[in-house]
Parts: sequence; structure tokens; C-alpha cells
Amino acid sequence: MSVKIGLVGTGTVGGGCIDIIQKHRADFQRHFGVDIELVRVCSLNSAEAEAHGVGDLFTDNFHEILEDPTIDIVIELIGGTTFAKTVVIGALEAGKNVVTANKALMATYGQEVMEAAAAAGKEIAFEASVGGGIPIIDPLKHSLIANEITSVMGIVNGTTNYMLTRMADNGMDYAEALKEAQDKGFAEADPSADVDGLDAAAKIAILASIAFNSRVTLGDVYVSGITSISPVDLEAARDMGYVVKLLAIAHRREDGVDVRVHPTMIPVDHQLATVNGVYNAIYVVGDFVGETMFFGAGAGSGPAASAVMGDVLEVARHVQQGVAPIVGCTCTDDLPILPMDDLEMKYYIRFTVTDRPGVLAAMTSVFANHDVSVHSVVQRGHGQQGAVDVVYVTHTARESAVRAVMDEIASLDDVLQGTPSLIRVEE
Amino acid sequence: MSVKIGLVGTGTVGGGCIDIIQKHRADFQRHFGVDIELVRVCSLNSAEAEAHGVGDLFTDNFHEILEDPTIDIVIELIGGTTFAKTVVIGALEAGKNVVTANKALMATYGQEVMEAAAAAGKEIAFEASVGGGIPIIDPLKHSLIANEITSVMGIVNGTTNYMLTRMADNGMDYAEALKEAQDKGFAEADPSADVDGLDAAAKIAILASIAFNSRVTLGDVYVSGITSISPVDLEAARDMGYVVKLLAIAHRREDGVDVRVHPTMIPVDHQLATVNGVYNAIYVVGDFVGETMFFGAGAGSGPAASAVMGDVLEVARHVQQGVAPIVGCTCTDDLPILPMDDLEMKYYIRFTVTDRPGVLAAMTSVFANHDVSVHSVVQRGHGQQGAVDVVYVTHTARESAVRAVMDEIASLDDVLQGTPSLIRVEE
Repeated sequence: MSVKIGLVGTGTVGGGCIDIIQKHRADFQRHFGVDIELVRVCSLNSAEAEAHGVGDLFTDNFHEILEDPTIDIVIELIGGTTFAKTVVIGALEAGKNVVTANKALMATYGQEVMEAAAAAGKEIAFEASVGGGIPIIDPLKHSLIANEITSVMGIVNGTTNYMLTRMADNGMDYAEALKEAQDKGFAEADPSADVDGLDAAAKIAILASIAFNSRVTLGDVYVSGITSISPVDLEAARDMGYVVKLLAIAHRREDGVDVRVHPTMIPVDHQLATVNGVYNAIYVVGDFVGETMFFGAGAGSGPAASAVMGDVLEVARHVQQGVAPIVGCTCTDDLPILPMDDLEMKYYIRFTVTDRPGVLAAMTSVFANHDVSVHSVVQRGHGQQGAVDVVYVTHTARESAVRAVMDEIASLDDVLQGTPSLIRVEE
Repeated sequence: MSVKIGLVGTGTVGGGCIDIIQKHRADFQRHFGVDIELVRVCSLNSAEAEAHGVGDLFTDNFHEILEDPTIDIVIELIGGTTFAKTVVIGALEAGKNVVTANKALMATYGQEVMEAAAAAGKEIAFEASVGGGIPIIDPLKHSLIANEITSVMGIVNGTTNYMLTRMADNGMDYAEALKEAQDKGFAEADPSADVDGLDAAAKIAILASIAFNSRVTLGDVYVSGITSISPVDLEAARDMGYVVKLLAIAHRREDGVDVRVHPTMIPVDHQLATVNGVYNAIYVVGDFVGETMFFGAGAGSGPAASAVMGDVLEVARHVQQGVAPIVGCTCTDDLPILPMDDLEMKYYIRFTVTDRPGVLAAMTSVFANHDVSVHSVVQRGHGQQGAVDVVYVTHTARESAVRAVMDEIASLDDVLQGTPSLIRVEE
């Protein structure tokens, strides 16, 4: 007997799922002894659905999927946290297993969703919510579970990685890189979720929750985007032996979980440093396994659909064999989230200042007053219209002290308007 | 009730497993609701076992483990294909699940082992047999199964990757690199299994069997090692924009499976090109997911034990929940293995010849006579004792024709003794 699937959402990823089922259904039967049958496709865009030849399977009413007693697995691919939440929770309550690619939902209402699944005795799978086609949630829930995971660091947003790669390799400025990313379809017309780091924040919340067995939600993640990064920063980083990536970072520390998204300098020989363009990678450190990294396409129809359908096939095997959910909510601990202000690391800070004697001395004394020890100060650029860039790199310092330094320096007379560029350093 | 484990073999990996259980047993109980209890440890080396404080659990008779009705899972970590095979098959026949790190066993007797597991209705898991701590077998059996996998290419031998990295970065010759690897404990006193490529061959046989759903055994793999690689080859490769790695390669082609291990030139910007030192990585291409890569430590106590214990915990979850094996043998197809002679690719070939007029013309005409089209010929080196290196790079050519060229050139008067260096090119 076939395992019956209802699909909600026929955009890029939904279309990819239909393509996979059409191309590989017979292979799945032969290889896994599971016959996946798509029995209902819900979309508000009938033309989009029809482009994949769904014919009679089409409906624009998701209740038809939730109320169809034959459906075993519901795939939710509409995104967002309102309507999608209704569909996901509704499907679980209707006794269906759910597969979703919805990072916002899982990062915001993960606990509620997991509880609904547990109450229903059904599975909720969401590999596609992080890293597109890259297997990362599954390894964290299975292969790597003999470890205490100490760090997860990811390049999990392809848009910003593409932009930073173009800025570093081709000297483009931020606006040019964004324009090109938009022209190529890698960035939205409104790019804020990507460039401000919120997309990456949702993903690291999900990964940290699994890796550390303790719930981290979107609101727990400190977020800073790439909008104030300029090519001069990338050049300065390279001169120091670093590259700049928008990293989503989660560390398990003695006193809690440190979780954040910001532009980050990593050494050129770090395994993440060569992950360029729209590719994603997640770097995981465990107490026994040491360093591992998972690389691949972080977005796109095929990769995301590969992750969704991998989950669907896994759940379908269980449905076919009558196996109750094996891995439910993994958040069995309750670790505190460390306040950003209390963290300590090294900082790269660039200010644009008037090229006048005394400015450097005034700025540098601000660092001293706040007890932030400076490793190096370099003046860069040739002073367009009397302005120069001054780049500070600190020794290990406290975040709150560095913020105080920045605020105070920003108020100095000769420091020009505009956000200084702040890049944190991971060694 | 605890899930009871019997461990056979207390070497590096076995010791790591004991350490993991001792450190994390309570964590496993809290996170996964599974209590892993080590109840028997078999070793021929009681001191080695005692170093991990096994005390009363010790036995030197593996029958005590096979015959203990309370034991649910047997971990086999003795290696080899004789005694280990007896233990693995014996444990399955005794109704126990088995976890092993034994690549030789799985690459040679994989089918027999899978059949014994199926007959017994028990699980056999072997993540640690390839890539040390890197999750790769599990992703191929789960997350990536919605794809038709078209290629698997791996740096799966840390010893040779360390040597090639040192030769490329520090200009060491083969003997120096080997000596250093041995001094650091990265190479055995008898390094042949590593440098001749047999270790990598066993691993790619295992990966290809899973990725292509068709049995590939060790004997099916064409193998060529790194013993004739010299620093001049690595330098020449770099000049052409390539790096040289000992790659284990498996491609699904229209007419069958192409599977081999040999020194390989890959472009410097290939994701595998920056995998250096003792690290391993496996690059997998699927029809929907596109390119993915899995990176980590390919050997060592912690990483290998992480993979073994990941399998143990997974099986233990099933034991605890009373779930019958979900994924058994994945070899449901029967694809032919393509003969090496029939493959077509590009080749780098270096001959050492007497520095005399006419030699180059004589050699080059051999290529023409065998219809092997030459892309470039470069003379390298300054002729120590009247000898120079001549490096050919071919256009796409047939393996059998290239072999004929090499045989004929080797018989020319001015071509010096010793194996020419042959490196195949993957784009």
C-alpha cells in the first residue's frame, strides 16, 4: 500500500518535490520498498501547480488535506508563521506526520510544534529549514549524538555569502553586490531578512536547539547584518590573514549558550573560509568527533526539495513499518542564553574620520579609558575629501566595553557620520 | 532497563568507545531516554582493557559475549576479515545487533554480513568504516535518499593526504613525507595499505554500494597508489591550477559504475582541494541536491569512537522501542562495473628521460600513433646528471590507449628506468 502525501505550497521548493516524486517514485519503491503517492496538492496559485502537471490533485483549500483520512504525511512549504502554523499544527492534530522547510516557524514556535507532534504521537521533520540540501539536522540528531557538541558555526545564508564573496574577490561595494545578487535572483527585492541577518538567526536558533539539547528561539539570537561592511574591510581582513563571512555562531560555554549572527573574521585556512558564492556550510565541533563540516547548496528548488523529500521518505518508512516516532523533541536541558554584553572576543573596528592631527590620539585614548586593549591601529585609504579609514584590532575585550568605546568615539568631533564597521573575530 | 553492550577489541577505537560511555552515559539517558550499559569487554590485551578501567567486565573469550543472552549490541573493533568475520556473523546469528568499524570486512564480505543480519532480523551498522568521525554512510542511507547519486569522490585516507600536503606545501619528497608521517604516528611501519591505495579502495567500495544501490566489492575497485608521485608533479599541477589528491572515485555512468582510487588532479577551487593534512572529506553529487561535501577527522580514537557510538545509540533507541531494523541491505540494483580500460579522461604523465635531441619527438610520435591527443608538453627541471622530466597533459583519451602509450614509451632507449608518474584529471 502506498504512503499518501498531501502537499501545501507549490512555489520553488514545492515544485521541486513534485518533480522528485515524478522522476523517482519507482526508484523509491525498488530501493526502499516504500511507495510514495502524492494524493493532494494545495496552492493559492493554480497555474503554478498546473505547471507541474498536478491535474485533479489540485485544491485551493488546505482543509481538504487536513480532513482527508487517507493522507499520512503533510508537506508544508508556504513559509511564514501565521497560515503555515495553522497548517502544521492542524495537520499534527489531525493525526498526520508533517515535513516542513519552515525556519521561521521552527525558530519561533518550535516548542509548540514539537508538543503538538508529541501529543499526536506523530513525526515533525524539518531538515530543509537549515542549509537547503545539506544534511545537518539529521547528523545532529543521529550520527553525532555520542558527542557533547561545543560549537556550531554556519554560513547559512547564500545571499549574503554571495555578496561578500563578490565584494572580496571583485572589489564591489555593498550596493553593487546587492544589485548583482538581485539581478541573478539570489536576493529579494526587499533584501532585509538576508542582509540584516534574520534569516541566519532563525537557522542558528534551530541548530543550537538540537546541538545543545536546549531550546533557543529566534529572539534569543543577537543579530547584526552586513550593511556596514565595505570592500576596505575585506581588504584589511585579507592583509591580516582573515576572510569575512556572515557567520551564525553558537557556542556551548560553561555558564550557558552563546548564540549570535554577525560579520565575522575567520583565518584564511579555516575550513569555512573557502565556502564561497551562494554555497552554505555548517561547521560542528564535538568533544569526541573534533571538527566536522557539512557543505552544499543552501537554497534552490532541487537542494531544498532533496532535503524535504529525504524527510518524507524517512517518515514514510516509519509509517509503512508502523513505527512510532523515534526521535521527538531533543530539548531536554534548559541552558541559559548568555547576554551578548558579557561575551569576550577580539574585535575589528573601522571608523571613518577627518584626516587631521590629534584625531588618532583622541580615539585611541577612548579605548584606554574603557580598558579595551588595542592590538593594532592602521590608517587605510588615501583620504578621499579629507577623510581616512582608521582600523582598530583589539585584544580580547568585553562586548559591553567595546560598545561603550564605539559610542564614545562616534560622538567625537572628527569622526564622520555613518555606522562604523564592526567585525568580530573567531580564531 | 538498560541496553546492554558487549565490546570486542580494546585498541584505539575500542578505548575511545569506553571513554565515551564513561563520560556521557548519564547525558544519553537524559537526552535520548536510553541507558547504554557496557556489560562485557573482550580483548587479547588485558592491560589495554584495564587502562580504561573495565575491571570485572573483562574477558579474553569472545564466546562469552556471543553467548550472553542479556547482550543486545555487539561492537566489533578488532579489524581484519578472519576473526572479525567470525565475531560479526556469530553475533548476528546469536540474535545480536552489531556495530563495526571494519572496512575490510564490509568491502569484502558485505553481502554475506547483510544477509546474516537480515536472516537474524537484526541491525548491522558501520558508519565508522569510512571517514572516521564524518557522518557519511548515515546521510547516504537517509537524508540524501531522494536523489539519484551520480558521483562520490573522497579523500578517505588521512596518511596519504598528510604526505601529499607536506610534499605540496613543503617540497618534501615521498620518502621524507613518509618518514615524517611515520614519526608522527600517521603512518604504519608497513605503510603499504595506505600508500598503495587499498585502504581507500575498501572505503569507496562501501560508499559506492550504498550511493548507487548496487554492490561494489574491494576487488571491483581499480587501485593505484601515490608511490611514484614526486614534488615536481605537485609543482607542475599547481602551475596548471590544480592540486593532487589521492581520490577514491565512484561515478554512476549510463552503462554502469566506474570506481577507482588513484592520484588525481582537481582544480584548486574544487571544494576538496583545501582538505589538507590528515583530514578526510567526501564529496557527493545528487541529481536534485547538487554538490555536497562532508568533512572531518578520518581517523583517531575520538572521531572513530564518535561514529561507532552514534551507531550504537541509534540501534539502542530501536532496541529500547522494540523496532525491527528499518534500513537493511541497500543494494537492490545490480549495475555492471565498468572496466578501467574503457574509461575516458584526461591524463598527466611525467617521464624522466635523457636530455638529448630527438627524444621528445620520438615520445610525442608514440602519443600520435596511439591516437592520444596531446594538450601540452612541458620539459621541467634542469637535467640532473643529464636527465630531465617531460610532462605530458592529454586531451580526453581512452585509458587503454594511454597505457599502450606508456608501455611503448617506457621501452624507448632514452627513457629512464622507474615508473613514470601518471595522474588522472577530474574536472
